[in-house]
Amino acid sequence: MEKNRSGVTAPAGFSAGGIHCGVKKTEDPDLAMIVSETEASAAGVFTTNLVKGAPVILSMEHIKKGHIKGIVVNSGNSNVMTPTAASDAMAMAQTAGDALCAPANRVLVASTGVIGRSMPIGRITTGIKKLSRSLSQVGGAEAARAIMTTDTFAKEAQTTAIVGGKKVTVGGVAKGSGMIHPNMATMLAFITTDAAVTPSALRGMTRRVNEVSFNNITVDGDTSTSDMFITMANGASGARRITSASGKDFKILLGAMTKVARELAQMVARDGEGASRFITVRVTGARNPREARMAAMAVAKSSLVKTAVFGQDPNWGRALCALGYSGAIFDPAKAKLSICGMMVFNKGLAVIGGSLSRLKKKLANKEIEISADLGSGAGSAEVWTCDLTYEYIRINAEYTT
Amino acid sequence: MEKNRSGVTAPAGFSAGGIHCGVKKTEDPDLAMIVSETEASAAGVFTTNLVKGAPVILSMEHIKKGHIKGIVVNSGNSNVMTPTAASDAMAMAQTAGDALCAPANRVLVASTGVIGRSMPIGRITTGIKKLSRSLSQVGGAEAARAIMTTDTFAKEAQTTAIVGGKKVTVGGVAKGSGMIHPNMATMLAFITTDAAVTPSALRGMTRRVNEVSFNNITVDGDTSTSDMFITMANGASGARRITSASGKDFKILLGAMTKVARELAQMVARDGEGASRFITVRVTGARNPREARMAAMAVAKSSLVKTAVFGQDPNWGRALCALGYSGAIFDPAKAKLSICGMMVFNKGLAVIGGSLSRLKKKLANKEIEISADLGSGAGSAEVWTCDLTYEYIRINAEYTT
Repeated sequence: MEKNRSGVTAPAGFSAGGIHCGVKKTEDPDLAMIVSETEASAAGVFTTNLVKGAPVILSMEHIKKGHIKGIVVNSGNSNVMTPTAASDAMAMAQTAGDALCAPANRVLVASTGVIGRSMPIGRITTGIKKLSRSLSQVGGAEAARAIMTTDTFAKEAQTTAIVGGKKVTVGGVAKGSGMIHPNMATMLAFITTDAAVTPSALRGMTRRVNEVSFNNITVDGDTSTSDMFITMANGASGARRITSASGKDFKILLGAMTKVARELAQMVARDGEGASRFITVRVTGARNPREARMAAMAVAKSSLVKTAVFGQDPNWGRALCALGYSGAIFDPAKAKLSICGMMVFNKGLAVIGGSLSRLKKKLANKEIEISADLGSGAGSAEVWTCDLTYEYIRINAEYTT
Repeated sequence: MEKNRSGVTAPAGFSAGGIHCGVKKTEDPDLAMIVSETEASAAGVFTTNLVKGAPVILSMEHIKKGHIKGIVVNSGNSNVMTPTAASDAMAMAQTAGDALCAPANRVLVASTGVIGRSMPIGRITTGIKKLSRSLSQVGGAEAARAIMTTDTFAKEAQTTAIVGGKKVTVGGVAKGSGMIHPNMATMLAFITTDAAVTPSALRGMTRRVNEVSFNNITVDGDTSTSDMFITMANGASGARRITSASGKDFKILLGAMTKVARELAQMVARDGEGASRFITVRVTGARNPREARMAAMAVAKSSLVKTAVFGQDPNWGRALCALGYSGAIFDPAKAKLSICGMMVFNKGLAVIGGSLSRLKKKLANKEIEISADLGSGAGSAEVWTCDLTYEYIRINAEYTT
């Protein structure tokens, strides 16, 4: 394994790591920790599902104070709705806190995997004690692997920016790749930075970042019980402190964090379960941004659109159909639709005619773009998804068995 | 072919038929007509998609008067958004009207198939002239076959009832099997009866029938551009006329029509593209019927639930998860969930434990029942769907190519 400071350990003052502790039946890593040397400002967005995993409930409580020491994450079991779910989540926070010399309520917990099964909590707490002794500043990649479930590749991103003359770094990690549908955070994503930010400024930044990144992806339309997106800022860069949700410094860090989050979000869509193609849906000309997003999401969620892309089938009417039932209000006689840069529908009429075979060829690309102009206003949105393939069925028909 | 009076020709005074006229590239039948000897009262519900096929727009106009002579239907091309779509639909109505000695505006038109392709209108009008000479009182089955697209079996149902001492018959035909998602009528469905009903009473009856039948099925969540559900009542039974949307006679005919519609709707779900299993989702204890339906639909639409059923995977947490994001408000600590009659979740806790293997065996059944009690009120709903299989992907990845 390459030992670089990547992902969540790219910024100064963070360490991380991942090991196999025995939640998964395979020997894949299934336990990760992300820790800040000093307590970091923290903010998060959590699943809107009414059925929430015990770790979500616990972390929503712990993050209220605005400062945390670290995050402990297991994959393979989402710790949802079992008799011991709450105490298992608390045991993870307590064990990690003890190992890090921090109060339990300064530790967040995240779990991802099967719903409704008992956690092997003994193995997990033993694992936490072991892992906390081997955390390192090059452990981001290990952590990225340990939070994976059906993901086919680990997802890390990092960037830098200058705040008040000092370099700050932003790094992140995320996991997909099923039960991905935005409605707040849409999976597990953790972003760290060595910039200095107050908790309230960080909360505003996190919400805004989420709106243009993780909230814009869909794989299968299912909003998980366990999604969370957490940001941590520990100030280790020495850059001046960002204290309000406006101003130049705020915007610079917002830009850097957005860049990392969008990269991670696109990786999640790209690695959607069974995906063979990455699809970007752009809608312009909606009455407002909300309707633009509804329209783009309807296309991105349509099983018929996604199977057509998989099959290289130039059946563009399915995208038009999805726009029509999306709930966005528009007049088809003013709308336009392009696929892979080819106009297929213009102001109420099919215009592609004999070029269907050319469109079919373009659909062989790994990156597919579907763009609609609803001709009804200035609202726009961009959404990322993947195609729907045999492999999605295989993965999900055989998930727990 | 058996020559019985079935489906739409089960009631007296109706004739129907189906032939191949050349819309489909195969030799399968692709043109159907359903005709009443005398003008019939008629009512309909149409797709809510903003992008409507030209036949939908024309038929919505023609049905306003409340009386029609017949319906002409082609499969293989949905006649949506081409330069000649409106005139093609009108040519079909005009040709059929001429052949039936009725004004064009007494004919409804329905088309189903690919979106955005030009219709071979010459072949269709030639076909209409030919078909109108061979309609018969045993032609219901032929018509049922001619309206099929990816359906694997023709869908007919019929029943009888006694209205004022006279026997009346109700018969129907429907087609699926992709782009099936309710929001008004969800596919093509035509129900005939020889009862006598005024147009306004029939409109009320049709809406109520739709609410508890076609509006409760989902295959892939896509609301088509071309859906319609039409009812025709020609009075040929001689039974006394039903003139208001209340009273004993109304209720009797409503019951008979509901029976036929529910049978057809369940056939559509059962024959969902690629389906290997029929799934009934029942929700009780919701705050109101609307939320019950939202909750049931969320489970029925979940790709993760549907692939789990296909894979005989007892991963019941996915159904719980879908209830949680459905938008229905409930407290998981008061909710219950059963699958195939086995309680898996009770008042906030997983209860299935070691019986997972027994549940896995039950999932081998062809008929799967998922029942949730949200513990929050008296709202209930029932929804029908099918599993999501490799075959769905195959069918839809290769639809037009």
